[in-house]
Amino acid sequence: MTRASHSARNFSVIDHTHDAAAKSWVASANGHAAFPLQNLPLGVFTIHDGPGSLATAIGDQVFNLTDANSAGLLPEKFRYVLSWTGLWELLELDRSDLTELRHALFALLAEGAERQPEAERLLIPQAKCKMLLPTRPPGYTDFYAGIHHAENVGKLFRPDAPLLPNYKYVPIGYHGRTSTVCVSGEPVRRPKGQLKRGDGPPEFAATERLDYEVELGLWVLGSNALGEPIPIAEAGQHLAGVTLLNDWSARDIQAWEYQPLGPFLAKNFMTSVSPWLVTMDALEPFRVPQAPREKGDPAPLDYLAEDEPRALDIAIEVSLAKAGKPAVVVGRTNARNLYWTPEQLLTHHASNGCAMEPGDLLGTGTISGEGGDALGSLLEMSAHAGSAFLEDGDEVIMTAHCSREGFAPIGFGECRGTVTAS
Amino acid sequence: MTRASHSARNFSVIDHTHDAAAKSWVASANGHAAFPLQNLPLGVFTIHDGPGSLATAIGDQVFNLTDANSAGLLPEKFRYVLSWTGLWELLELDRSDLTELRHALFALLAEGAERQPEAERLLIPQAKCKMLLPTRPPGYTDFYAGIHHAENVGKLFRPDAPLLPNYKYVPIGYHGRTSTVCVSGEPVRRPKGQLKRGDGPPEFAATERLDYEVELGLWVLGSNALGEPIPIAEAGQHLAGVTLLNDWSARDIQAWEYQPLGPFLAKNFMTSVSPWLVTMDALEPFRVPQAPREKGDPAPLDYLAEDEPRALDIAIEVSLAKAGKPAVVVGRTNARNLYWTPEQLLTHHASNGCAMEPGDLLGTGTISGEGGDALGSLLEMSAHAGSAFLEDGDEVIMTAHCSREGFAPIGFGECRGTVTAS
Repeated sequence: MTRASHSARNFSVIDHTHDAAAKSWVASANGHAAFPLQNLPLGVFTIHDGPGSLATAIGDQVFNLTDANSAGLLPEKFRYVLSWTGLWELLELDRSDLTELRHALFALLAEGAERQPEAERLLIPQAKCKMLLPTRPPGYTDFYAGIHHAENVGKLFRPDAPLLPNYKYVPIGYHGRTSTVCVSGEPVRRPKGQLKRGDGPPEFAATERLDYEVELGLWVLGSNALGEPIPIAEAGQHLAGVTLLNDWSARDIQAWEYQPLGPFLAKNFMTSVSPWLVTMDALEPFRVPQAPREKGDPAPLDYLAEDEPRALDIAIEVSLAKAGKPAVVVGRTNARNLYWTPEQLLTHHASNGCAMEPGDLLGTGTISGEGGDALGSLLEMSAHAGSAFLEDGDEVIMTAHCSREGFAPIGFGECRGTVTAS
Repeated sequence: MTRASHSARNFSVIDHTHDAAAKSWVASANGHAAFPLQNLPLGVFTIHDGPGSLATAIGDQVFNLTDANSAGLLPEKFRYVLSWTGLWELLELDRSDLTELRHALFALLAEGAERQPEAERLLIPQAKCKMLLPTRPPGYTDFYAGIHHAENVGKLFRPDAPLLPNYKYVPIGYHGRTSTVCVSGEPVRRPKGQLKRGDGPPEFAATERLDYEVELGLWVLGSNALGEPIPIAEAGQHLAGVTLLNDWSARDIQAWEYQPLGPFLAKNFMTSVSPWLVTMDALEPFRVPQAPREKGDPAPLDYLAEDEPRALDIAIEVSLAKAGKPAVVVGRTNARNLYWTPEQLLTHHASNGCAMEPGDLLGTGTISGEGGDALGSLLEMSAHAGSAFLEDGDEVIMTAHCSREGFAPIGFGECRGTVTAS
């Protein structure tokens, strides 16, 4: 019996927790750009480098779910899963359970909540908290669903045919390394590797072409049994939420190593994610059709065909702070530019019976838009004038927001990383 | 402080535990083709589908290490790591600890052992045991170090230049999926996927080109900190042992999906490993120079340069049993055909600072030899006359042995898998 069999189809539930007029008794939440009452993301924090506590973000505060659980402020059914130091056990639940938890948090943190006095004691300023990785992903897969990125990179090698023939049929993906998935803020040490600089043999040296890649990270909820696919109509039940993801890349190592089996050491030295998992429930109002599908494009094969628009309208910004200087925005893009939806990526992954597990992380692939200011990596900018790769001391900062007329805007917080010397 | 810093260099210790004349009080061990007293592999078994117990194999018996530990028959220092239901905690130790455990087991199971009467009660016939996965690997990486396989496959696409220019410099590898690593005996369900059969669009259907790949699985011992490479002189300290590995592959899915990021759904539906981890200590007598290095080949770059021959002389046989028929040997090869040693693969993997972890699994890549009867996959045989891919009901059986004049031969047991319908 798999979780997938519990439900009939995906769903887009917009309910009272998305009401733009709803206000929290946490004053900083009302009108907060990222964490109003309508967001309620999930994360893990520590204060004195002790074990992690589960939390949601509300305004500029962290609300301690572990302590709220101990204090009996949350439904009894979550007692076990909220007693851990990471999100993994929570991600074993069903989508309807996450929705129930969201409703409970909304009630507890909304204006007029009966137990406000007890809950108030469980707020901690975010500035005092160190955020941890939400959970160690058991599996990490990186897709290549950003079609403009695929075209931009493809053009560097094949100007006349940048997209390969499989691109519009197969959600292209490959496995990444889970041991080096880190939370925002971890410094990224410039990796060494084999560099082929001229006609002679390669040298082993520090990368000279260190890059970022702007992606979303999709976090898997529940599991499917080995050999049992996840039908597209049920895929939404198996997605918990979304973070930002920086797929740090060493382009010179990549160029020399990647044939014929794909990227390896060029990528696996570090992957950064933002700490707050913005739930699929919070994102439901921001579902839109995929931007890049053109009229002549093939329809998805049946196993990937969806009956409603499932792309996410998430505006993403990437900034670069050169050592000691203020950050400058270097790219603006949107998750609508992904060719495949989160549900299509997950269903494709499990379509051969591959066992997906709670907390699995799926990178979407680099999200670029159309035009030179909408590029998700420096590699793509290098095709334009004057761009260089990352230097020691550079900090890369990604942020993201969702907005739609009639709904409270929500945000993702930041995914940061500073480059350090080899 | 990383484990890697504890020791100065690799070592080849041949000691009294390799003495060909040594005999066990377990009668079936003496002269046993796979599990004489000189082998002492590590594994995990269960009898009534209960939790796993740790074990070594001795002759046709399993010796229960968990119970031996409880009974005080093993050194006190192993009390904690042997109290678990899998090998993971044991793989957090140092190589010298594994050597000490080997010595303790050798003393306990050798003729004349004082505590033989107590130990005898902890033997169980292997035929009564169900073997489990030694540990769930936190990471799984598959290399491509079988140069003859790389040449054979390369010839199918590039007859004049089968090996890519990077092959003799870079140990080519890519990440695999850990959730579908299974122990020998698990049936392999024929996966579905996108197949591009003609000029039209692809279809989603069951693979028609299901294949096996003969590999070794190397199991990592201890860890290195993120950002800290493992020097080649210390790599031997970070290898626990070796199993057989079958990298099941769907060639039609692979051909359509693999550009540009490598194999994905064509491989991640299942990977099988043999249950007994043959320790590096047991394998030390069987170190030899790599077979395929030719005089004109480039020397390994400094970070991969070794000062002694470190290839493994392991003869591997693969048999195919068509439904209801006896098994027929379809390939004979040897791990000497790997272009890179286990230590080189591990050091390369960590050379960019990638964090390796206890229980990580490294596939070597398909091991083919020279000549048409030394092929590690059906794909390669398809270049010869009359070969077909796997049919439902087919069973693939891999076995392996080491032998050297003056030493007791040792073996790996079996890695089996039967194909079932989609």
